[in-house]
Amino acid sequence: MTPEHYLNSTFHEQIPLTRAMGLRVRQWQDNTLQLDLPFEGNTNHTGSLFGGSLYSAAVLAGWGWLTLRQQETGLEGGHIVIQGGTVEYPLPVFSEAIAVCAPPTPEAWQRFENMYRRHGRARLTLETRVLLPDGEEAVRFSGQYVLHR
Amino acid sequence: MTPEHYLNSTFHEQIPLTRAMGLRVRQWQDNTLQLDLPFEGNTNHTGSLFGGSLYSAAVLAGWGWLTLRQQETGLEGGHIVIQGGTVEYPLPVFSEAIAVCAPPTPEAWQRFENMYRRHGRARLTLETRVLLPDGEEAVRFSGQYVLHR
Repeated sequence: MTPEHYLNSTFHEQIPLTRAMGLRVRQWQDNTLQLDLPFEGNTNHTGSLFGGSLYSAAVLAGWGWLTLRQQETGLEGGHIVIQGGTVEYPLPVFSEAIAVCAPPTPEAWQRFENMYRRHGRARLTLETRVLLPDGEEAVRFSGQYVLHR
Repeated sequence: MTPEHYLNSTFHEQIPLTRAMGLRVRQWQDNTLQLDLPFEGNTNHTGSLFGGSLYSAAVLAGWGWLTLRQQETGLEGGHIVIQGGTVEYPLPVFSEAIAVCAPPTPEAWQRFENMYRRHGRARLTLETRVLLPDGEEAVRFSGQYVLHR
């Protein structure tokens, strides 16, 4: 099973709202995760994408990134939860969109990994974005994720 | 039609994800809006409420509050959109929950109303919360909402 299929199944089986959203894993490559957020089912009163769907895609890009990275680095067990975050919506979205999570700095990852191995609990800040199909930035999300045993 | 029925229909007709969430308007009273967020359909991998559902309920409590308040004060026309916000999740939720939006200060509202009447565009910060059935605070959200013609 590819990492993309694994994460897609995890989303749809464990977090049923992702099925209603039609959220799908697009690509896991170069340590970067991309999710597809369709337009249909996620619209609001202005005919653009609903802020709650955009936020959910952004928060799940980070959660999915950490899930796949955790597996690749053999950080056993533990649950990833979101502790808090800040969201900005610079542009409305009138089409499908792509949520992207790129890696934190190697230093931030190393601190996180060391802390988790030592204490069984660690926090990592991930910056995720939701992009228009042409690459313009529609949502910026900075989330604090906690991995704990 | 009561304000509760009106807002409930607006949610379900204009923002289809609210149907998938099973979100319902509980009460509009004393200038405070309460929404019911059911457990089923909104769970995550830990068996608690999904952060995206909690955020959506919080952001919609503010959006709904502003929608009803706008009507009551005769602020004609215009769309309300969310520009950004900050969310914190102090407690996981293992049951249904209630999203609450209380009014801002009278001064903040007056500034907002004056600005909108004068310029056709104004911004208001609303603090919403998601509560456990026993009243404990599970989510704090501070959102910047923009009303514009």
